[in-house]
Amino acid sequence: MALIVQKYGGTSVGSIERIQAVADRVIGYLNAGHRVAVVVSAMSGETNKLVALGRSTSARPSSREMDVLQATGEQVTVALLAMVLADRGYPARSYLAHQVAIHTDSSFGRARIVGIDTERLRADLDAGVVPVVAGFQGVDAEGNVTTLGRGGSDTTGVALAAALRADECEICTDVDGVYTADPRIVEDARRLPRITFEEMLELASLGSKVLHPRSVEFAGKYQVPLRVLSSFEDGPGTLITMENDAMEQPVVSGIAHSKDEAKITMSGVPDVPGVASRILGPVSRAAIEVDMIVQNTGADGTTDFTFTVKRDDYERALELLRPVQAELGARELAGDNRIVKVSVVGVGMRSHAGVASRMFDALAAENINILMISTSEIKISVVVTEKYLELAVRAIHDAFELGKAAAGERV
Amino acid sequence: MALIVQKYGGTSVGSIERIQAVADRVIGYLNAGHRVAVVVSAMSGETNKLVALGRSTSARPSSREMDVLQATGEQVTVALLAMVLADRGYPARSYLAHQVAIHTDSSFGRARIVGIDTERLRADLDAGVVPVVAGFQGVDAEGNVTTLGRGGSDTTGVALAAALRADECEICTDVDGVYTADPRIVEDARRLPRITFEEMLELASLGSKVLHPRSVEFAGKYQVPLRVLSSFEDGPGTLITMENDAMEQPVVSGIAHSKDEAKITMSGVPDVPGVASRILGPVSRAAIEVDMIVQNTGADGTTDFTFTVKRDDYERALELLRPVQAELGARELAGDNRIVKVSVVGVGMRSHAGVASRMFDALAAENINILMISTSEIKISVVVTEKYLELAVRAIHDAFELGKAAAGERV
Repeated sequence: MALIVQKYGGTSVGSIERIQAVADRVIGYLNAGHRVAVVVSAMSGETNKLVALGRSTSARPSSREMDVLQATGEQVTVALLAMVLADRGYPARSYLAHQVAIHTDSSFGRARIVGIDTERLRADLDAGVVPVVAGFQGVDAEGNVTTLGRGGSDTTGVALAAALRADECEICTDVDGVYTADPRIVEDARRLPRITFEEMLELASLGSKVLHPRSVEFAGKYQVPLRVLSSFEDGPGTLITMENDAMEQPVVSGIAHSKDEAKITMSGVPDVPGVASRILGPVSRAAIEVDMIVQNTGADGTTDFTFTVKRDDYERALELLRPVQAELGARELAGDNRIVKVSVVGVGMRSHAGVASRMFDALAAENINILMISTSEIKISVVVTEKYLELAVRAIHDAFELGKAAAGERV
Repeated sequence: MALIVQKYGGTSVGSIERIQAVADRVIGYLNAGHRVAVVVSAMSGETNKLVALGRSTSARPSSREMDVLQATGEQVTVALLAMVLADRGYPARSYLAHQVAIHTDSSFGRARIVGIDTERLRADLDAGVVPVVAGFQGVDAEGNVTTLGRGGSDTTGVALAAALRADECEICTDVDGVYTADPRIVEDARRLPRITFEEMLELASLGSKVLHPRSVEFAGKYQVPLRVLSSFEDGPGTLITMENDAMEQPVVSGIAHSKDEAKITMSGVPDVPGVASRILGPVSRAAIEVDMIVQNTGADGTTDFTFTVKRDDYERALELLRPVQAELGARELAGDNRIVKVSVVGVGMRSHAGVASRMFDALAAENINILMISTSEIKISVVVTEKYLELAVRAIHDAFELGKAAAGERV
């Protein structure tokens, strides 16, 4: 008799047939005595179509209007799903963000949720009505339509679960859980029965597309039990847990990779205080996200400065830095957008030395050159040339024996 | 330096190119010093697509959810048009119904506007911002999305003009005005430079698709000067005026026709009080609109009862009446859905006898049999077999010499 928030992604509601299947799944929970609130994304491909429509209309589309445009995608799916549920005799009611309301700040295109009213949803749940809430969208203090950015429906799901104090938030998607590595690359990749929030957050940020990082952050902050599972098949999926006892954890939980990477190097920069901010300042002011940053100081009083950005931002970042290079009198500005990032993640790595060397050994054994390294408490990332991606992921997966269930793993 | 509300229909915003053209037209008015508020429909075909999507999802789609679904059509166009205007350097801001707000009752699918807040729109207009308002949609007292029914964007335009006390409401469409008859049928049909509200209301109700009847009613009630003109070509269009001096009016202004007709006859009904309501009661309770009604009493104490409905409702109305026929012991229930209605409209008809006989003579001269007749103060309608439609319209157009500018007509 739990209260469950279920979020269904674009693939799960990608056709009338799939929306019918989602309705079946929701009804299964209702018949088992649970109360369910549903959050849905736009039908797969719709958001891209709407963005393309906006861009074909305007060279620099107003971000406010792009949000008005994009919000129609989720509006269609909430209406359709609510219809189908009602058809089957299960009262349902669609909600747009302003109707709930889901309050956000006014950062169009990447708004942050600041609060959710739950009065109407609670009344529905108490009356046996299934609220079907549009993901991805919000309303700001002036009543403008906002959107939360790509993957934002995950965040809507988690935030709603937090606001309703739900027993669990299910992220229902087209994979049946979180894997030790991408199963399309690693044949013996294994579904993880559970994973910690910290690990999931690193995996999500590192390009594993299962969950939007902000949603994981949100779930951790508000202690929302989160589960990733399939919309199409039965199964326990992967539970994202609060438990964080390194003794019981495997050293490494999984391997993430991201192709959406490019690196830029400014070399022969005079090594004086403030250089880093003069280089990164213009880039971050242009809202370009910088990920890894490495600075090597040479013997001649100059320094080489390397950082990574998303591939889409590569050309623009290079352009922004040309005048900076001239100003600083740097020797060279160069870049490479054919690189990828491969990372190992595991909370157990905190208490185990030697994870890095095991990873680097595995890459060296395959003659893969490491271009950049970055580490955090529970993660080690390396940048390598794109052509080595699959080889690197498989080598590391093998090196940590992730294909076998780890010792002490609770299934 | 007027305040003008411009409403653009689906064809006028049917593609990116046309939306650009609409922006050009709006900018022309702004550059001439006018203040403009814009109301737009969904791109042509979109509403039909959304309705089909809803119907393919659910056999009996919830009317509340159909409105949520359909409202996305206008949401797309307001965003796109506002973007284009901003692109060209003319600040613009899209508004959904709940943002304005456009308050309606809760009759989903055919809601009526009960009030419009103008505070935000006025602030925009005063600040030189063009408000771009979604037509067709509203918000009820509980915050639900509603829609006004087909052609509802016309009503939004007129209601907005009334609320803003605009100097004129322009209905910008794909024809350049109101004609004496359908130009596709009558070669020498003429654009009317002006027409009275009463006449326009009759023409709209009688199947001339230029304006939605409810919008005309609204404009008459709130004395909003209304003009029908082309989105694509310059020209004065047709002004719908309050002036109503029959002396200056031609006897007949125009010929309307409607193919969306079917008639049902129950004959041999015992002629006792209450028969009409026992026949029409079930039909109107099923929300089927009845248009013309004729009752002939025979010598044998029975009566024949004939009425017309829209073609889509024909089968359902017949079905509803079968049990009624049995109950009443009526001799026969029959119908015909291959009929059309042809009407002459003109305020001048009030002061001129002989309009009906001139019309009937013209039809008789072509051997066209009149199946039903209905008259009002400024209109005479006849029902004829569908195959005579074009012949009948041309014969009547000629009989009233509508091809020539009428005497005393001010152009």
